[in-house]
Amino acid sequence: MLSTRNYVLTETHRFRPTNWHNVFAAMKPALVVASGDTIITETLDAAGTNARGEQKANRPNPMNGPIYVAGAEPGDALRVEILRIDPVRATGWTRAALSANVLEPEYARNLPPRDVCNWIIDLETSTVQLATPPATLKQLILPCAPMIGCFGVAPAGGVAISTATSSRNGGNMDYRGFTAGCSVSFPVGVTGALFFLGDCHAAQGDGEIAGTGVETCCDVELRLTLEKHRSIGWPRGELDDRIFTVGNARPLDQALQHATTEMVVWLKSDYGLSDSDAAHLLGQTVRYEVGNVYNPAYTMVCSIAKKWLPEKPNQV
Amino acid sequence: MLSTRNYVLTETHRFRPTNWHNVFAAMKPALVVASGDTIITETLDAAGTNARGEQKANRPNPMNGPIYVAGAEPGDALRVEILRIDPVRATGWTRAALSANVLEPEYARNLPPRDVCNWIIDLETSTVQLATPPATLKQLILPCAPMIGCFGVAPAGGVAISTATSSRNGGNMDYRGFTAGCSVSFPVGVTGALFFLGDCHAAQGDGEIAGTGVETCCDVELRLTLEKHRSIGWPRGELDDRIFTVGNARPLDQALQHATTEMVVWLKSDYGLSDSDAAHLLGQTVRYEVGNVYNPAYTMVCSIAKKWLPEKPNQV
Amino acid sequence: MLSTRNYVLTETHRFRPTNWHNVFAAMKPALVVASGDTIITETLDAAGTNARGEQKANRPNPMNGPIYVAGAEPGDALRVEILRIDPVRATGWTRAALSANVLEPEYARNLPPRDVCNWIIDLETSTVQLATPPATLKQLILPCAPMIGCFGVAPAGGVAISTATSSRNGGNMDYRGFTAGCSVSFPVGVTGALFFLGDCHAAQGDGEIAGTGVETCCDVELRLTLEKHRSIGWPRGELDDRIFTVGNARPLDQALQHATTEMVVWLKSDYGLSDSDAAHLLGQTVRYEVGNVYNPAYTMVCSIAKKWLPEKPNQV
Amino acid sequence: MLSTRNYVLTETHRFRPTNWHNVFAAMKPALVVASGDTIITETLDAAGTNARGEQKANRPNPMNGPIYVAGAEPGDALRVEILRIDPVRATGWTRAALSANVLEPEYARNLPPRDVCNWIIDLETSTVQLATPPATLKQLILPCAPMIGCFGVAPAGGVAISTATSSRNGGNMDYRGFTAGCSVSFPVGVTGALFFLGDCHAAQGDGEIAGTGVETCCDVELRLTLEKHRSIGWPRGELDDRIFTVGNARPLDQALQHATTEMVVWLKSDYGLSDSDAAHLLGQTVRYEVGNVYNPAYTMVCSIAKKWLPEKPNQV
Repeated sequence: MLSTRNYVLTETHRFRPTNWHNVFAAMKPALVVASGDTIITETLDAAGTNARGEQKANRPNPMNGPIYVAGAEPGDALRVEILRIDPVRATGWTRAALSANVLEPEYARNLPPRDVCNWIIDLETSTVQLATPPATLKQLILPCAPMIGCFGVAPAGGVAISTATSSRNGGNMDYRGFTAGCSVSFPVGVTGALFFLGDCHAAQGDGEIAGTGVETCCDVELRLTLEKHRSIGWPRGELDDRIFTVGNARPLDQALQHATTEMVVWLKSDYGLSDSDAAHLLGQTVRYEVGNVYNPAYTMVCSIAKKWLPEKPNQV
Repeated sequence: MLSTRNYVLTETHRFRPTNWHNVFAAMKPALVVASGDTIITETLDAAGTNARGEQKANRPNPMNGPIYVAGAEPGDALRVEILRIDPVRATGWTRAALSANVLEPEYARNLPPRDVCNWIIDLETSTVQLATPPATLKQLILPCAPMIGCFGVAPAGGVAISTATSSRNGGNMDYRGFTAGCSVSFPVGVTGALFFLGDCHAAQGDGEIAGTGVETCCDVELRLTLEKHRSIGWPRGELDDRIFTVGNARPLDQALQHATTEMVVWLKSDYGLSDSDAAHLLGQTVRYEVGNVYNPAYTMVCSIAKKWLPEKPNQV
Repeated sequence: MLSTRNYVLTETHRFRPTNWHNVFAAMKPALVVASGDTIITETLDAAGTNARGEQKANRPNPMNGPIYVAGAEPGDALRVEILRIDPVRATGWTRAALSANVLEPEYARNLPPRDVCNWIIDLETSTVQLATPPATLKQLILPCAPMIGCFGVAPAGGVAISTATSSRNGGNMDYRGFTAGCSVSFPVGVTGALFFLGDCHAAQGDGEIAGTGVETCCDVELRLTLEKHRSIGWPRGELDDRIFTVGNARPLDQALQHATTEMVVWLKSDYGLSDSDAAHLLGQTVRYEVGNVYNPAYTMVCSIAKKWLPEKPNQV
Repeated sequence: MLSTRNYVLTETHRFRPTNWHNVFAAMKPALVVASGDTIITETLDAAGTNARGEQKANRPNPMNGPIYVAGAEPGDALRVEILRIDPVRATGWTRAALSANVLEPEYARNLPPRDVCNWIIDLETSTVQLATPPATLKQLILPCAPMIGCFGVAPAGGVAISTATSSRNGGNMDYRGFTAGCSVSFPVGVTGALFFLGDCHAAQGDGEIAGTGVETCCDVELRLTLEKHRSIGWPRGELDDRIFTVGNARPLDQALQHATTEMVVWLKSDYGLSDSDAAHLLGQTVRYEVGNVYNPAYTMVCSIAKKWLPEKPNQV
């Protein structure tokens, strides 16, 4: 990926928010940064509790931000590199029942209450386990795999999207791939982009089907870089070995349509493929991952391994 | 997995069909085998052409079979182990456009015709590539990753399901994981189970979004084992590192509901988990894979790594 | 509607089946008729019970038939005119809970058991009411509005479709409009068409959302007319004041897509409209009705009032 | 319906907005009224043009408002009675193609461009017709049936919803039933309720499947009445002969789930029905109507005829 990052002096900001937000929307920025700057900030958990167990903000998914990136305008993209994400609390929580919408409708009669359950996050061994596991789950000691559940930019058109859901601007996507080493670009909707983040998980399965990951507080280090005149329709990202697009909608079929269309558009504009070329490439190599199937908008990720991509014609 | 396979003498059958079928249904068997027997058979491609390029049967997806497994009755399951799957033709074919249903509706105006394209399957190097690649896809030399697109058993109730689609009995699921080393169990619907297979692909991306994998003929070696009194609702399988369930329906949300419910039921009956235990295990470790999003019924696969499973209480 | 009915002598058949079927499929006909013939036959209820309360056949929805219409071939349509439909049993039954799939997923926890409830069908007053109504439903004395829940022809391609569901060939559509005065054409899939019917309801709301109408036995009088070389994709019908098309699929969105596309195709081929003309006509006058949202395939009906249709150019 | 309207002196306001809004959100009110007051106001069309053809505001669907209703608080409902709605412009416009999403995906290749077409609204005869109809649509002279396409209140939680879509708070529902004589209650999300309206159509088919009704400007007369402590989840309304609920979501199945669940909740709380009673009543009498299947959220209306309702126990 060609970065439009400025190779001039960039700054690192330690951002300590004093208030939090439950919508992605145009509002007074809490921090102003330059393109290429690094931000280090600690997030609350999904319920608004901080690392010391203090209730600091309201549900759902209170966000740190917004961060204003100088020079960002609609028609640009904002690239977010997740440099580091570390849990900073020795506990997390989940819910004790699957969400009814991921099960056959009549099966919902059998569901136990959605009680809160505590998990231990061992910051030394970097593992995660139930605080009081039943006999059948004694072996369930998961590697800590911290991720950002909810982040993105303010949408265009005066819209304010709840942090419970997601759309073109990002939001509550709950995709496991949003972890250290991932970069993702969001379509800028307003001047300054106005970036928000929060709702980190120490671990999570695909789909967030219990309605939560292991909800906790994290210290996150990000680099924000402006991609001028990069007009994108949906979030586009990059991991070590692949590029990906994100579609957010219901049903899952429509989320998949958005993600697939965005990938085709990307392959055509940046890699010189025709629609037929894209059909050959994607038809035989595409991978799909389910972000969430719990929130009002579901999330589908469409990816392709970098090894199958042609050189970018415009990268000479 | 406990196998109910007979450790008495088992046979290997070289099955050479002389006619093929376009439905999964109760009909006169082409071969009768015992539980534990191995079958070696060569499949036609999805269009009914054999390894020598001769048109032998009609679309869609003509099936070898049915194979009658002695002793199989409704209420049992039939376990199919894919021991080996080798392409036997140096060519395959695909379509030159994505299917309209995986793209945003208005984007379908831009789609090129769904022309047939030829691929070279290099049986020596075990690679797959377009016969006449455009400049942008010269690098697209894929590892051969042969899989069974369509297999399963006759459904119950006198139903005959087209080999274009799938249901509880299996069928045209087009899941990349149905490859050598995979075993999958189907719910027996009729006496003798009546197993069918065909429609192999030398490679395929998730979702079969161009409407085809690299369609070709394969020599397939399978072991069929009867699992008496194993009552299952949907296909259940096993790969090296994980167990999985399969849901077939539209929309993808409903396929996911079937697969997830079947996994919960399995975890409860065989591993002693409660609904809450299953929520903890699946919520933080489940993986979903998209089989197909092209056929009348879509396919979603729900899996869990074996390393997170408890010992089976009933395996002592 | 131009009828291709023969104006030669037609016959009336009193058809008394001795066995019933749970699939729409090619099979030995129970009756052979000529195009234009009238059939009078008494149906079992959805559970297989006859007017005298005797269990005669199995669930789901045992069908009278099949009726072979001489001369019918794939590529033709079979027009079914419902001339009369009279309940012949003083009782019907329903279920005491809504189906979980028509309610918000979490609401399913609150549902009562799906117990069978009895209704009184007053054949004198032609009304329907609960046998033992709760205080709040004493006023619920509904006009008897008998309809055929499940009818259609054998599908093409050797497919056998369960009478629990529906497809292009008709089937378990549960549309209130299938009542006396309605005519509906099905695409012929096999030689002789092979027409089946059953599962009548004395009354039913839209969507069959309790999973049943008032299930009972009816005496039905139908005229079957062959429409040679009328190639249709989905059922097309006619009521006093409107023409309609039927789409059967999940989700409801896809059923609507099938019904709408079939209507556009019809308006273009028979009424000389262009795609734009069809957009104007349908955009400002179309009506949708929900057949069922309970069965495996949902049913959406797309209709247009006859008064807005142009003269058929081919009717001169 | 019991009104909580104040029988003290109420006022009639002629509201002439000078700016318009493209989101439903908390913002400075343009008008403050008392519960029971009447408002008369003229709306722009969906594209922001007024009755004199002047462009006054931007797409999509610019709204008159917001109107602050004194005393309204979250937990209340705001009842909107549509007393009168009269087109005030002799022209309207539509699009010349169906929306791709209401047709089978592959059919979208055949669609003509979505050109704007002009319609004549004859205010004398109260009819609507294409300005330059093709030969096949000369007979298409529709009765003027004016309706409000988009109205509702500000959502809770700081959310700002685009006037292109809809949710619990109402919005762009495009339901033909929102016409003179209809009353509809919205759940109040913020202090003062903040009511908005616009996007009137002189006529429209179900589903708004061409993406427009006959888009025009109307003079609308409404009465706004506060229903204190009436906590509702989704819009609830009343027409001459029936009560109805509205669900807004994708897919249509989910919109239907919301509408049906809201109706069950209403029948239980206000009419004393149990879940089983509601199943009996709705199962045999419910009617569904499709609002829109074009906007980001689809709209399904669930209704029941008043003649089948019991007396309200709390109306004594």
